[in-house]
Amino acid sequence: MFITLTTDFGLQDAYVGIMKGVMARIAPEVHFLDITHQVPPQDVRAGAYLLWAALPYMPSESVHLVVVDPGVGTKRRAIATQTSWGILVGPDNGVFSYVWAAASSTAVVELKNPQYHRDVVSATFHGRDIFAPVTAHLAAGARLRDVGSPIDDPVRLPLPRLEASEEQVTGEVLYVDHFGNAVTSIGRLVWEGGFLHLDAAFGGSERMLLRADQLNVRVGDRDLGAVQRTYGAVKPGEPLALVGSEGMLELAVSQGSGADHLAVQVGDPVYLYVT
Amino acid sequence: MFITLTTDFGLQDAYVGIMKGVMARIAPEVHFLDITHQVPPQDVRAGAYLLWAALPYMPSESVHLVVVDPGVGTKRRAIATQTSWGILVGPDNGVFSYVWAAASSTAVVELKNPQYHRDVVSATFHGRDIFAPVTAHLAAGARLRDVGSPIDDPVRLPLPRLEASEEQVTGEVLYVDHFGNAVTSIGRLVWEGGFLHLDAAFGGSERMLLRADQLNVRVGDRDLGAVQRTYGAVKPGEPLALVGSEGMLELAVSQGSGADHLAVQVGDPVYLYVT
Amino acid sequence: MFITLTTDFGLQDAYVGIMKGVMARIAPEVHFLDITHQVPPQDVRAGAYLLWAALPYMPSESVHLVVVDPGVGTKRRAIATQTSWGILVGPDNGVFSYVWAAASSTAVVELKNPQYHRDVVSATFHGRDIFAPVTAHLAAGARLRDVGSPIDDPVRLPLPRLEASEEQVTGEVLYVDHFGNAVTSIGRLVWEGGFLHLDAAFGGSERMLLRADQLNVRVGDRDLGAVQRTYGAVKPGEPLALVGSEGMLELAVSQGSGADHLAVQVGDPVYLYVT
Repeated sequence: MFITLTTDFGLQDAYVGIMKGVMARIAPEVHFLDITHQVPPQDVRAGAYLLWAALPYMPSESVHLVVVDPGVGTKRRAIATQTSWGILVGPDNGVFSYVWAAASSTAVVELKNPQYHRDVVSATFHGRDIFAPVTAHLAAGARLRDVGSPIDDPVRLPLPRLEASEEQVTGEVLYVDHFGNAVTSIGRLVWEGGFLHLDAAFGGSERMLLRADQLNVRVGDRDLGAVQRTYGAVKPGEPLALVGSEGMLELAVSQGSGADHLAVQVGDPVYLYVT
Repeated sequence: MFITLTTDFGLQDAYVGIMKGVMARIAPEVHFLDITHQVPPQDVRAGAYLLWAALPYMPSESVHLVVVDPGVGTKRRAIATQTSWGILVGPDNGVFSYVWAAASSTAVVELKNPQYHRDVVSATFHGRDIFAPVTAHLAAGARLRDVGSPIDDPVRLPLPRLEASEEQVTGEVLYVDHFGNAVTSIGRLVWEGGFLHLDAAFGGSERMLLRADQLNVRVGDRDLGAVQRTYGAVKPGEPLALVGSEGMLELAVSQGSGADHLAVQVGDPVYLYVT
Repeated sequence: MFITLTTDFGLQDAYVGIMKGVMARIAPEVHFLDITHQVPPQDVRAGAYLLWAALPYMPSESVHLVVVDPGVGTKRRAIATQTSWGILVGPDNGVFSYVWAAASSTAVVELKNPQYHRDVVSATFHGRDIFAPVTAHLAAGARLRDVGSPIDDPVRLPLPRLEASEEQVTGEVLYVDHFGNAVTSIGRLVWEGGFLHLDAAFGGSERMLLRADQLNVRVGDRDLGAVQRTYGAVKPGEPLALVGSEGMLELAVSQGSGADHLAVQVGDPVYLYVT
């Protein structure tokens, strides 16, 4: 059994180690698998994106601990949800929204049963006092109905922008990675010969077949031309658009940083249109 | 059996991986649990604080490897100590001081037995050559008396400042975390209705009962007002004092960085007094 | 069985977690051991150095996953190699060169068998789609000949500079670590009383015996004097040359950053000569 961890705690402090200690005392045989602890601080949307990108690759016997929690100590609820990508445990602030849109889910419960929390619950570190112990108990065999009571109104973020007309697809920058590659909401794109097949990644109904050599990608006032197959399709230092590893349209610079070069930020609109 | 790791090696180089490799060869069944590898470089005091904060949450069957070691290669001794929070292994430079003050300890030994070290001991990486192999052997069943000889004069740091009079408690900034929250030495504080109960965190005898709504927190020339229960008690961007997750008085900014906003540093005095 | 990981993916994104998920699905009983994920981005030479430094300490039953891969999506081959330091899996760009020079190797295969890859192989993330699944299958019992076909012309980097005459040894800065210590290619050096024994670290034939107190180390226009035994041999803030933990000549500053102080960079020549 695996427990994955996705947080914005960083690795400077002892917070992640403390949560693992709390879980190891409850479920000593579990394996921990860190997805990331460097979600931008308190950025629920980036957390939602990273979960959506990573969870399909995780072992099927996983419980996913998620702590991106700007509302800790306020009245925001603590929840767990059963999905086809495993059980997720975390704050009710929308961080599971993209997973819910793409995977099937069968239940959401509010973590009301204090029997599965630490004896004293602080106002500032629910990761340690509620989410970690509930996660470990679920990994050790507790059922969702043991740890909480069903709710039907969890907080949901707006889904990433994806609008498709006959001539144009409009999306937005979703996430900028460590290499400076800007992942957009335009996808999933699959190559079929000289064509790109678009199939909405977040549960929407958009579907299109696009002829790759007749396309242009625009962000801000920059035209990046057609969609390329590899970073190496342009000279080092030149910008390009390509299909990233999750099948999303990605803005990059060959052997450089696309985000720096193109001055793009999360939320910026991106256009893919027939020339 | 768990081995926890607390170092200032960072994650850029291979040093942490090398120590784990050395330990895995000796004790392949052990689970590693990283507390942090980003103790500020050579900052023994920050290491002492992080161990004090994290160790109570670790599995009881743990050996704790600690390498914050500015004196490597000098005559500083290498030691291990049995405490009620597990066995700790590391340099004799005071990094265990806060654990000794808060937990009970039964023995300190100097790591004199070369049978438990690597065959060749370098002058610059005792983490690999002495501390890691001794830690792994202890986790694999060696006893404290096997690896060294008792000493009674380990180096001890001064304990964090905590002075309590009838009207005022004086402490200092102990640690600034990733979010910019400044943890102080004033604690542990426990809410009891409208009162805060203070009970010395590092083994001192100070004990007080304070009426929460009549208090003011001062740092530098700034008054932060009463002690709040959650970050959300003030508007985003405003500073506040609250009880942190370890029960220590903490200076923070709602959805921002307290250390930046208040320009506080480790060692700065902090006052809590009756208004 | 252990799988070690060495990449330039950083820890901000989910890429490392995704590779671990892919491997855990194939080989759930394996233990992961992170060497580093902070190889400077796309710096094949730094990756080659870190593997050379770390692999001798890893458990003998290890498969080593290496992803420093600026050529992903181009025609660069994917390879695996059996060495006396375990099996390595990664791109054919020279990143295994220093290991090949120092350890014995018996075979290199190109990863041509798609049965051991993910069903769909992206153009941008071979770490997930080829290297991780091949690594996990090798850790789970597949043989090198199962996953690919022998090649005899893998890409090799030039070896680090090491030229020894009777009076002088010339090397270069190989790597600058987290503490600012500059590791050079002059080594391995072993103390023998007042002498330093030099024995070529990367498989060359250079061998010398140097009288330690008659040596001077020069980098740029700075003379660092004789080779010291510990950081503590000079005052805090002063530069020195010493034998680092891998036996290589290292340029450092006591309790400071040698690279900053001496303004050295990877590739700068370093001279050790008899005065």
